[in-house]
Amino acid sequence: MTLNKEEILNTRKRIEGHIHNTPVLHCQYFDDFIQGKLLFKCENFQKTGSFKMRGASNAVIKSSEARGANLFTTHSSGNHGQALAAAAHRAGAKAIIVMPKNAPKVKIDAVKSYGAKIVFCNSTTADREKTCNRVIQQTGAVFIPPYDAHDIIEGQATCAAEILKGYTNLDYILTPVGGGGLLAGTKLAASAINPSTIVIGCEPQNADDAFQSMQKGVLIPQNSPNTIADGLRTSLGELNFKVLTENKTKILRVTEQEILMAMQIVYERMKIVIEPSCAVPVAAVMKNKFMFTGKKTGIILSGGNVDLKVFFEDLKLKIQH
Amino acid sequence: MTLNKEEILNTRKRIEGHIHNTPVLHCQYFDDFIQGKLLFKCENFQKTGSFKMRGASNAVIKSSEARGANLFTTHSSGNHGQALAAAAHRAGAKAIIVMPKNAPKVKIDAVKSYGAKIVFCNSTTADREKTCNRVIQQTGAVFIPPYDAHDIIEGQATCAAEILKGYTNLDYILTPVGGGGLLAGTKLAASAINPSTIVIGCEPQNADDAFQSMQKGVLIPQNSPNTIADGLRTSLGELNFKVLTENKTKILRVTEQEILMAMQIVYERMKIVIEPSCAVPVAAVMKNKFMFTGKKTGIILSGGNVDLKVFFEDLKLKIQH
Repeated sequence: MTLNKEEILNTRKRIEGHIHNTPVLHCQYFDDFIQGKLLFKCENFQKTGSFKMRGASNAVIKSSEARGANLFTTHSSGNHGQALAAAAHRAGAKAIIVMPKNAPKVKIDAVKSYGAKIVFCNSTTADREKTCNRVIQQTGAVFIPPYDAHDIIEGQATCAAEILKGYTNLDYILTPVGGGGLLAGTKLAASAINPSTIVIGCEPQNADDAFQSMQKGVLIPQNSPNTIADGLRTSLGELNFKVLTENKTKILRVTEQEILMAMQIVYERMKIVIEPSCAVPVAAVMKNKFMFTGKKTGIILSGGNVDLKVFFEDLKLKIQH
Repeated sequence: MTLNKEEILNTRKRIEGHIHNTPVLHCQYFDDFIQGKLLFKCENFQKTGSFKMRGASNAVIKSSEARGANLFTTHSSGNHGQALAAAAHRAGAKAIIVMPKNAPKVKIDAVKSYGAKIVFCNSTTADREKTCNRVIQQTGAVFIPPYDAHDIIEGQATCAAEILKGYTNLDYILTPVGGGGLLAGTKLAASAINPSTIVIGCEPQNADDAFQSMQKGVLIPQNSPNTIADGLRTSLGELNFKVLTENKTKILRVTEQEILMAMQIVYERMKIVIEPSCAVPVAAVMKNKFMFTGKKTGIILSGGNVDLKVFFEDLKLKIQH
């Protein structure tokens, strides 16, 4: 798969009004730390709280236009489910989201708030897929995959396109890598718009299937990953693996401690809410700081959907005493 | 005290480069909730994490220029101490901050990180003032008060001036009120720049000395307030009381539960970190929503310096299991 500049700009036009052109922030603390320039693209401020809104909107709109589809489905316990619910709603269509019945209430409520119907399943991949297939057979809903599909990758590519519009001479762009849709889209966007920008994927050492796959040249599925970065526990998709292999994309890995430390600094210094997966490229920059010294680096802050219950429960106790 | 437009614009020029022109964010959730338009001026993104940097910078620069002062002091356990430390550093001067010895380590570290010297005292107001006076006598340092002084109020006025530059036709601007420097500055800025904008102060019911003082027409000091909004526990200053009285400034009050609920929604929907004091005007808008329906309202998000230890300790436990 490749994308040319025109395709990316057309995609950006297609989803205009369905997504935010999120702000780019910078932070003196990080610039001083690496002795370089870091630009943070805030997809945590994106509609539904993650970049997933881009791909889901693109897929929904294209499918509506090409096939007149007005009912969509996916299985997701995370950001893609919320994004599809909101993207369908925004496009005047409907969505049925298959969610594990043990999904956090806050995520169930979010999907409902976007007007989608929820069908519950068991939390195994097998039952999620089986339930989703049943929905498709019974309702004729169009399946929108979370990451491993052309229209999704094309949608995610618009994020890097926005960064490169404002900052034409970036040395690097870093993204997290889970299923690989954001990383593949970012790589294709950079190749099309500014080929000298090096795109790097970042993943937890405890869920390093992308790193292992790139090393061995064959797709190695992720087995029972033990990482706090819940958005990155999934296996790299086949199409995305192909894009990354063809482009020899580099992967950096970080430990759980490094993820948490980076996350805390972002909260304390930048005063923004990010989810653990989102802290992974920040941690990678801090761990490999000399690589980025004197360079201009974009980091895609992928999302901000994190459970803050512990924090607010503690504050509630404080006002009761 | 009054300020004309020229004085405010000159002040803004004076502190240019010492402060950020912070972004104004909006949030669909709140707009839908009140059926109006809310504009959030993000002083939580300000240098040192609060609006206090404006007043402190103005006072330091004016004092340097008028008297050649290059050593400053104050007593503070909170945002003003950090702001003065950073403002002095930025102006090429030095600061000695008197802090209670039981101040949170994170605040002590922040003051140190701006290159200031710390002198510890007991946490009583009497000992803070005594220690600070000793510092002044021994070193000749110039005292920079936290809120009740012309140059501080003038500096805080630049925040509303920035909002009104981008949004000329605001119906309301809301700020929290503790010592009253931000509220008085905001009121004076609105009167000078766009007199039809109504300025409202917001405070916790559990620390409602501004409300009581305005009601009774005499300054009533705050006695042992029990509020989570730690930045608003202080008593309204005399000069600020005078400004608010002369301008018949309205005060809205909110409960502790309302503060926490508003704070949580800001974190979850806007994905930004704010401190409890900062949530007070947000809570006031939610509580009095019909007052703001169909209106355009600016809210000054005063700061983001909050202790997130409980949240990160919990995440640390999760990666150890």
